[in-house]
Amino acid sequence: MKKVAIIMGSDSDFPVVSKAVKKLREFGVKYEVHVMSAHRTPDAAIAFSQNAKKNGFGVIIAAAGMAAHLAGVLAAKTTLPVIGIPCKSSQLDGMDALLATVMMPTGIPVATVAVDGAANAAILAVEILALSDDSLAQKLEQMKADMEKGVAAKDQAMQAKVAEL
Amino acid sequence: MKKVAIIMGSDSDFPVVSKAVKKLREFGVKYEVHVMSAHRTPDAAIAFSQNAKKNGFGVIIAAAGMAAHLAGVLAAKTTLPVIGIPCKSSQLDGMDALLATVMMPTGIPVATVAVDGAANAAILAVEILALSDDSLAQKLEQMKADMEKGVAAKDQAMQAKVAEL
Amino acid sequence: MKKVAIIMGSDSDFPVVSKAVKKLREFGVKYEVHVMSAHRTPDAAIAFSQNAKKNGFGVIIAAAGMAAHLAGVLAAKTTLPVIGIPCKSSQLDGMDALLATVMMPTGIPVATVAVDGAANAAILAVEILALSDDSLAQKLEQMKADMEKGVAAKDQAMQAKVAEL
Amino acid sequence: MKKVAIIMGSDSDFPVVSKAVKKLREFGVKYEVHVMSAHRTPDAAIAFSQNAKKNGFGVIIAAAGMAAHLAGVLAAKTTLPVIGIPCKSSQLDGMDALLATVMMPTGIPVATVAVDGAANAAILAVEILALSDDSLAQKLEQMKADMEKGVAAKDQAMQAKVAEL
Amino acid sequence: MKKVAIIMGSDSDFPVVSKAVKKLREFGVKYEVHVMSAHRTPDAAIAFSQNAKKNGFGVIIAAAGMAAHLAGVLAAKTTLPVIGIPCKSSQLDGMDALLATVMMPTGIPVATVAVDGAANAAILAVEILALSDDSLAQKLEQMKADMEKGVAAKDQAMQAKVAEL
Amino acid sequence: MKKVAIIMGSDSDFPVVSKAVKKLREFGVKYEVHVMSAHRTPDAAIAFSQNAKKNGFGVIIAAAGMAAHLAGVLAAKTTLPVIGIPCKSSQLDGMDALLATVMMPTGIPVATVAVDGAANAAILAVEILALSDDSLAQKLEQMKADMEKGVAAKDQAMQAKVAEL
Amino acid sequence: MKKVAIIMGSDSDFPVVSKAVKKLREFGVKYEVHVMSAHRTPDAAIAFSQNAKKNGFGVIIAAAGMAAHLAGVLAAKTTLPVIGIPCKSSQLDGMDALLATVMMPTGIPVATVAVDGAANAAILAVEILALSDDSLAQKLEQMKADMEKGVAAKDQAMQAKVAEL
Amino acid sequence: MKKVAIIMGSDSDFPVVSKAVKKLREFGVKYEVHVMSAHRTPDAAIAFSQNAKKNGFGVIIAAAGMAAHLAGVLAAKTTLPVIGIPCKSSQLDGMDALLATVMMPTGIPVATVAVDGAANAAILAVEILALSDDSLAQKLEQMKADMEKGVAAKDQAMQAKVAEL
Repeated sequence: MKKVAIIMGSDSDFPVVSKAVKKLREFGVKYEVHVMSAHRTPDAAIAFSQNAKKNGFGVIIAAAGMAAHLAGVLAAKTTLPVIGIPCKSSQLDGMDALLATVMMPTGIPVATVAVDGAANAAILAVEILALSDDSLAQKLEQMKADMEKGVAAKDQAMQAKVAEL
Repeated sequence: MKKVAIIMGSDSDFPVVSKAVKKLREFGVKYEVHVMSAHRTPDAAIAFSQNAKKNGFGVIIAAAGMAAHLAGVLAAKTTLPVIGIPCKSSQLDGMDALLATVMMPTGIPVATVAVDGAANAAILAVEILALSDDSLAQKLEQMKADMEKGVAAKDQAMQAKVAEL
Repeated sequence: MKKVAIIMGSDSDFPVVSKAVKKLREFGVKYEVHVMSAHRTPDAAIAFSQNAKKNGFGVIIAAAGMAAHLAGVLAAKTTLPVIGIPCKSSQLDGMDALLATVMMPTGIPVATVAVDGAANAAILAVEILALSDDSLAQKLEQMKADMEKGVAAKDQAMQAKVAEL
Repeated sequence: MKKVAIIMGSDSDFPVVSKAVKKLREFGVKYEVHVMSAHRTPDAAIAFSQNAKKNGFGVIIAAAGMAAHLAGVLAAKTTLPVIGIPCKSSQLDGMDALLATVMMPTGIPVATVAVDGAANAAILAVEILALSDDSLAQKLEQMKADMEKGVAAKDQAMQAKVAEL
Repeated sequence: MKKVAIIMGSDSDFPVVSKAVKKLREFGVKYEVHVMSAHRTPDAAIAFSQNAKKNGFGVIIAAAGMAAHLAGVLAAKTTLPVIGIPCKSSQLDGMDALLATVMMPTGIPVATVAVDGAANAAILAVEILALSDDSLAQKLEQMKADMEKGVAAKDQAMQAKVAEL
Repeated sequence: MKKVAIIMGSDSDFPVVSKAVKKLREFGVKYEVHVMSAHRTPDAAIAFSQNAKKNGFGVIIAAAGMAAHLAGVLAAKTTLPVIGIPCKSSQLDGMDALLATVMMPTGIPVATVAVDGAANAAILAVEILALSDDSLAQKLEQMKADMEKGVAAKDQAMQAKVAEL
Repeated sequence: MKKVAIIMGSDSDFPVVSKAVKKLREFGVKYEVHVMSAHRTPDAAIAFSQNAKKNGFGVIIAAAGMAAHLAGVLAAKTTLPVIGIPCKSSQLDGMDALLATVMMPTGIPVATVAVDGAANAAILAVEILALSDDSLAQKLEQMKADMEKGVAAKDQAMQAKVAEL
Repeated sequence: MKKVAIIMGSDSDFPVVSKAVKKLREFGVKYEVHVMSAHRTPDAAIAFSQNAKKNGFGVIIAAAGMAAHLAGVLAAKTTLPVIGIPCKSSQLDGMDALLATVMMPTGIPVATVAVDGAANAAILAVEILALSDDSLAQKLEQMKADMEKGVAAKDQAMQAKVAEL
C-alpha cells in the first residue's frame, strides 16, 4: 500500500496536523510526517515532492498558515494528488491560508479541505488510496456507518438534555 | 479504468464545467456528465452517488454555485473521493460557493479547487486515477513538461512584447 | 396546533439551539428536537423532512455550522417552511454558515435568521403558526408589548448608570 | 386567503422584485405591491405594517438594498412573518444589504432569503400560507415535481451538449 | 447651547457608549442618554427624533450593533445631524453593524464613526456644536494640543522602553 | 453663512463628487471645490485644512479612493467637522476606501458616509450648517417632504408597472 | 547600477506589469522582464532567484494572481528585496492574490504593493536603488515635484469643470 | 551605514514593534524608535520624514492600526523606501489596517508586510541596506541558513512527537 506524506510548514501546526496522523492510524495507513517549509527549506520541500512517488507515497497532505504556499509548491513538483489544509493563524481567521491554498492556477490543483480540517484531509487521502484497496474501502464504509450510529445515539441523548432545560 | 462523474447543479454551470470535460478527454479518461441538483433532484443525486462505485466510477466532480451543497450531498453517500468546483454566480463573487463547498465537517471531505477551477478538478481526478494507471501518470508528466515549455515560450515571446512598449 | 421541528446538525450546536427550545416553550408551542446531519445521517434527515408534514409538523428549524447544508437538504424534501440558523464555529466567524444557509437557489427557499439567532428562529416559527392561531398571535402581541416595556425600564435604569459614571 | 404584501424600498428594485410578483401570480396568491421606504416614508411604512394584519395580509415581503432597514422596520410593527430580500446595489456586491437584513436582534426576526432572491421570497410566502390552504400545498408539491422533471430534462439535453464539445 | 442626545439600541452597548458620555462631560456639553430600539421601541425612537430639535438637541448620536438600524431610523425623522456608532457584537466582528450604519441611501445621511468609536462620536458632535460656540472650539484646539503633547511624551518614554528590550 | 470645502484626492473622483456639488447648489450653500492629495500634495492639503476655519469654511468634505487618507489628514489639522466619502476604485469594491476612511483613532473623527455617497455628504454638511441657519433647516424639511411625496408618487406609478407584468 | 528583475507568473499579467516596465524606463533603470511561474516552471524561477544577485540584480518584482505564490517562492531563494504585485483575476477581486502575497511568515518578507499596483512596484524599486545612487534620488525628487504640480494643475482645471456643472 | 527609523502610531503598538527592534539589533543595524501619529502629531511626523534622508536614515518602518495612515503620510514626504506594518486592533482582525496601508495610489508606494509582521519589516529593511553593505548580505545568508537548519531540526524533533501521539 502506498504511504501518505504529511508535511507541515511549521511545527506550530502540529496540534491541527496531529488529527490527520491519528485518523490515518485508525485506518492503518502508513505515513511519514515532516516539517518542511516552502520558504525556509524550499530545497528540501521540492526534493521531497519530486521523489515522493518513487519513494512509495501515493498522496501528499500539506498544512500551512498565512500565505500558505506549501501545498502549491509541493504540487508543482509531483503528479501525485496533493491535499491542502489551510491553517488558521492569529490574524484574518484563516481566510488568508484558505485563499492561498485553494485558488491555484490551471495545471496544478490542490485538493483543499476546510480551515484546520486535518481529519478530513486524512479521510480524503484514504478515499483516494481505497480506490485500489478494498479493505480500506470497507473501513470507510464502516466509518460512515459508525458516524451514522453516533449521530443517532446523540439524537437519543438529546431527548434527555432537552427535557432538562 | 474507472470513470469520472461530472455532476453540475444547474445547466447554467456548463460553460465552466465544459473545461473539465475537455481536460478529461485530453487524458482519455472516460466520464459521464449529468445535471443533478442537491435541492431540485435530491433523490437522483443521492441514488447516483450511492451507486457510483458499483457503476464503475472512481471519482465524482461536483460543480455548483451559491449555497453550493451538491458536492457535500454527494460525498455523504459515497466513499469515493468527491471534488468540488465552487461556481461564481452573479452575487458575492463566488465566495458563497467556495465556503459552502470547502468548509465540510469532519467525516465527509470535499476536495475543493478554485472558484470556477474546472480544469483543475479534472486534472486532480486524473492524478487520483493515475495512482493505479501508469499511462495516465505518464500523461500527467507530459502535461507538466508541456506547461513548462509553454511558459518558457511565453517568456521568449515576452521579450518582443517588452521591446514594443 | 402544528408542531415545530428543531433539527441540529451536531449536538455541539445545543447551547445555541436551546434558546429556540426555551422560546417555543414560552409560547406553549409543541416541538421535537433532533440531532440529524445532512452529511452523516442524510437518510434520517431526508426521511424526517419527507414525512414532517404528515407527522404533524408545521415548521422546521435547522441549525448548522460551517458549510451548513442541513436547512437546504431538509427544504429539498418538504413544502413546509424551513428556517435556517447559521451557527458560528471556530473559524470564519459564522460567515461560512451564513452564506451556506441563505444563498439558496430558486425553488428551495430557506428563511434565514442571524448567525446564532436561535431565539428569533423560534419567534419566526411562532409568527408563522400564529397565522391560523389567534391565541399565539395574542402572545406575540404581548411579547412585543413586554419588550417595549423592558426597553423603557432599561432606559430608566440607564439614567442612574449614567449618573454614576 | 390572506394576501401577501410586497414592499420595495425604491422603485429601482423592481427588476428584482418583479420575480416575486410573477411567482405569486403563478400560485394564484393575492398580493399588493408598494414602494415605501424605511427612511424616506417611515410613517407610511409603519402605518402599513401596523395595519397589515387587519387589512388581510398574512405575509410581508420587503426588498431593499445598501443599509437595508426596510424589512426590520416593518417587522418592528407587526407580528406577521416578514421576509427580507437583500438587493445588490452598485457597491459591495450585496453584502451590505444581506448583513443589514439578516442580523436582526432577538425579538424581531426577518426571514432572509438570498441576495436578489425574490422568487424564493414568494415561494417562502406561499409555503407559509399553504399551512392552512391545502390547494396551495398541492401547487407547491407540483412545483417541486416540475422542478425535478425540469432538471431531468436538462440532464438529458446535456448529453447532446457534451457530445458537441 | 444645544444638547446632544445619545441613544443606544440596547443597554448592553453601555460600556462602549459610556466613552461618549465621558467625552461630552470633558467638554462641558449637555446631553441626555437613552435606551431606545429601532425594533423594540420604534414609536419611542421616532417620537424622540421627531421632537429632538424643538426639545433643544443639536446632534443625535446613535449606537447599535448587528443589523444596526437605529441611526437610520432616527435620521429618517429629523433634519439634525445624526452620528452612528456601529457596535461590535459576538459575531462578524462589527462588519454587520458598520455596513448597516454607513451604507445609507441618498437623502438620509448618517455620519458614521469607527466600530465602537464612541469617543470620536462625541468629539464629532462637539466639532459640530463648536461651529457656533467659540469656547467649544477653543477646547477642541486645546484637546488637539494635549494629544500632541501626549504623543510627544510617549515618544520620550518609548526611548526608555526600547533601551530595556 | 459658512462655506463648505469639497476636496477630492484625484480629479478622477469628480463624477462622484459632482453630486455633492449639485446638492449644495440646490441648498444655496457656498462652496469651494479642490483637487488636493494627502500623498501628492500633502503641504497644500495641510495648509488648506489649517486655514479652513479662518477662511470662512464650516465643514470640509473629503473624497478619496483606495487607501483613502485624505479625510484623516485634513481632520488632523482642523477642528471643523470633516466628512469622508470613500470612493470605489477598480479593485476591492470600495471596501478599502471605506475602512481607511471610517476606522479613525480616538481624537480625530471622520464623519463617514456610504461608498460613493457624495449627495449624502452634502446633505450632512447642510444639516450641520442648518443648526445655526433656520432657512437651511426649512429647506431640509422641504427636501424631506419632497422625498416623501416622490416615493408616494412612485408607489402610485408602481401599480401600473405591476399591472403590465 | 543594479538591474531590476520583473517576473510575471503568466503573460496574461502583462497589461498590469507593463506599467512597471514603463516606469523603470522613465527612471533609466535597467531591467529584465520574464514570464516564470512558481507552479509551472518552479525550477526556472528558483534558479533565477538564486542567481539574481550575482547576475547583477538589485531588486526583484514579482506579479501574480489568484493563490499568488511567485513572490514568496522567489523570496525564499534570495536575500535581495522582493516586491510583490498582487494581480486581480476574474474572481474574488484580487483579495486572494493580496493575502497570498502579503501574509508571509517571519524570515521571508515580500514588500507588497496595492492590487495591480505595478507602477508603485517600480517606484519602490527605484527608491531602493536610489539609496546608493544620487542621480536616481534626484529623479525621485523630481517625480514628487512633478506630481505636486500635476495635482495643482488639475485643481485649477477643476474650477472650470465645476463651473460647467 | 544608514539608520532605520521605526515609527509607531501609538505606544500600544510596541509589543508588535519590539520584534522589529530586536531583529535590527541582531543584524547590528542602527535604528531610532519613535511614537508619532499621522493624526495626533502630523507636524512631527512630516518633519521627521522630510528630514529623514539628511539625518542619515535609509529606510523608514511605520506601524499603525485601524485606518492606518502613518506609512502613507511618511511616504508622502520622503523618497526613502517606507515599509508599512498593518497592526491588528480589537476590531476587524487587521483587515482595516492592511487595506489602509497597502492600497496606496500611484506615486507613493508603501512596502507592506503581513498584519503584525514586524520582524519581516526589519528583515526587509536589512535586505534593502544590504544592497550596499556586504557584511549585512552575509548575515542575511547566515539567517537563511540558520532558518533552514532550524526547520530541519524541528523535522527531526517532530518524529518523536508523532511517535508519542
